[in-house]
Amino acid sequence: MQKVYFDHNATTAIDKKVLSVMMPYLETQQGNPTSQHSFGRHARTAIEEAREQVALAIHAHPSEVIFTSGGTEANNMIVHGAAIKNPQSTLVRSNIEHPCVARPMEALTHQGWHQDLLKVNHDGVIPDEAYKSITADNISLVSVMLANNETGVIQEVSRLSDFAKGKKAISHTDAVQAFGKMEVRFDELEIDAMTLSSHKIYGPQGVGALILNKRSDIEPLIYGGGQEKNLRSGTENIAAIVGFGKACELISESLKESSMRSRELQTTLEFHLKTLGAEIFSEKVKRLSNTTFFAFKDIEGSTLLTALDKKGFAIASGSACSSVNKEPSHVLLAMGIDEDLARGALRISFGNQNTINDVTSFIETLKKELQTLKQLTAIAA
Amino acid sequence: MQKVYFDHNATTAIDKKVLSVMMPYLETQQGNPTSQHSFGRHARTAIEEAREQVALAIHAHPSEVIFTSGGTEANNMIVHGAAIKNPQSTLVRSNIEHPCVARPMEALTHQGWHQDLLKVNHDGVIPDEAYKSITADNISLVSVMLANNETGVIQEVSRLSDFAKGKKAISHTDAVQAFGKMEVRFDELEIDAMTLSSHKIYGPQGVGALILNKRSDIEPLIYGGGQEKNLRSGTENIAAIVGFGKACELISESLKESSMRSRELQTTLEFHLKTLGAEIFSEKVKRLSNTTFFAFKDIEGSTLLTALDKKGFAIASGSACSSVNKEPSHVLLAMGIDEDLARGALRISFGNQNTINDVTSFIETLKKELQTLKQLTAIAA
Repeated sequence: MQKVYFDHNATTAIDKKVLSVMMPYLETQQGNPTSQHSFGRHARTAIEEAREQVALAIHAHPSEVIFTSGGTEANNMIVHGAAIKNPQSTLVRSNIEHPCVARPMEALTHQGWHQDLLKVNHDGVIPDEAYKSITADNISLVSVMLANNETGVIQEVSRLSDFAKGKKAISHTDAVQAFGKMEVRFDELEIDAMTLSSHKIYGPQGVGALILNKRSDIEPLIYGGGQEKNLRSGTENIAAIVGFGKACELISESLKESSMRSRELQTTLEFHLKTLGAEIFSEKVKRLSNTTFFAFKDIEGSTLLTALDKKGFAIASGSACSSVNKEPSHVLLAMGIDEDLARGALRISFGNQNTINDVTSFIETLKKELQTLKQLTAIAA
Repeated sequence: MQKVYFDHNATTAIDKKVLSVMMPYLETQQGNPTSQHSFGRHARTAIEEAREQVALAIHAHPSEVIFTSGGTEANNMIVHGAAIKNPQSTLVRSNIEHPCVARPMEALTHQGWHQDLLKVNHDGVIPDEAYKSITADNISLVSVMLANNETGVIQEVSRLSDFAKGKKAISHTDAVQAFGKMEVRFDELEIDAMTLSSHKIYGPQGVGALILNKRSDIEPLIYGGGQEKNLRSGTENIAAIVGFGKACELISESLKESSMRSRELQTTLEFHLKTLGAEIFSEKVKRLSNTTFFAFKDIEGSTLLTALDKKGFAIASGSACSSVNKEPSHVLLAMGIDEDLARGALRISFGNQNTINDVTSFIETLKKELQTLKQLTAIAA
């Protein structure tokens, strides 16, 4: 059975060109980049080249790139790092942030910090009024994701920037899902910090970055040998960093074409889903071209997911990162979506390998599975 | 020029057998292990198999293995995690711990916690009296490394275990350097927590583990999607975890033979070093069989290191992780070694590929370089 992978917001396969630049670093003796001998120098050079590739892709300065073990660490790093510098302060985030922004903030509320939420509307967009409702004064960090991992909704980050400047707070955007799917320019967003992840853009797992401008003074999350200008200690993961750099280069080159292609797939998919009676969440607002989050009334998401998986289609229910959790999507609940409908939520996220044939064969399979499930429900009723 | 790598305590090359089990995870589409579809299930299975391999190698239970991005993160995790559970408590460590144990503790002293030090003697060993000198009562963590990265000195960890039990504190050992070079049994050490790293045992960079027994209740360092039983969130680095598992398996199989071989190299090396007038630090105490830390009086370490590097020999000055730092080794200063002699310190750490020929050709080169340096010094004087 040919398998079709429709879960690129969860993780992507490493691009062959990325793997080929990684191989020398996996196959031969590398030095520890802090070592003074030739092996060490070679490793340092490789890391600095990758840093330039990452910076170039997002229009940042290489000195603003801090390599981490991934997006989750980078998000924890900015939350913890900004908070520790400002005891008892308030941390502000939207109520649809990924758990790796939300949970570290929640943990800090048990240690003397405060948390305030920017609430999204029914479309999953943060309205201007949300910012007006925040009355706290001593704010250390405001974090709003650029694109949501579940709905794909893109936020207006300039609003975040203005608000944070007014409060003299660090502004941060989690761009893990946006990066590689839309143009992301650190220089134009006018924010202080941004999170990137490699394995969402056809790079290896285990690496990401916090982009941080020089005005922002944060404490490290991980202390030690003083790597990454003392902001992230630990022996650098050379092969992964080199791969991440290459993935950034490739994604920038192909962005226009890949967005157009995925927009085409999305349009076709959504047309058919609606014909079959699906509700598409955040349908009318600005969304990533690769992401469709939808539900069929009265059909449980995980049942349909399992049925489709058996037919070779890999799709997600809620977000992958919390799908061990059986609760309905926290993003949909924040949008005020009915809990029953939210339980039906499924996500399709396209990637570079997907074709229009994948979509049409998916729709055919979906039709059959829906019929089977409706018959079963009718029998049970 | 044939290069000889003598810096295995800094980092090792990935074993070819390790890389071959990693390749399928680098070459093909993998699922996010939290995803519910077949790709996700496959990734979960791979991670659980690796967890068993790690556990088996150190005689722990698989449920005690928490994968991290490396040793530095695991050490930060236990320090931060134990501290947060017990505000204002005291953290105890030896005065020769790696910076990734020492610095997070120091950072916490600025946030209301206290730190007490176990002081080593002239040989780099923690004497019994050191424990008696600790008078604090509310101790949350006691951390003593199993083997030192610079001197190779092995500590008597049972003493740590007894002391921590008496104080009802969590006992932790950083076994990053010991693991793979001597037998390390979590079940027999009678401690609560232990740190391992993959890239020191011919596994990939970017992965390590905190081994933590069930009695020990700690807070996460990195929050998010709830991976690793909520103790370490973030998409798992599948290929690296699989490689780490395999490296653990291989290192256990070959431990006896590889220790014997490196002991032979060490004996030969040290005989010749002493003949040439070197002082070998911690010579008379129990040390790793692969590590020799030495200095020549009146010869600067970094000058000799550079000269040897030009001849193809990669050795370390002080510890790799802090060799960007020009201060003399903090370990030697803690042992009360004269600062001038400490500045001459060089470390040779053998690995699987090194041969007796490497050692003899190194000694020949060293002789010549010493002569040249002595002549230069004589001219300058």
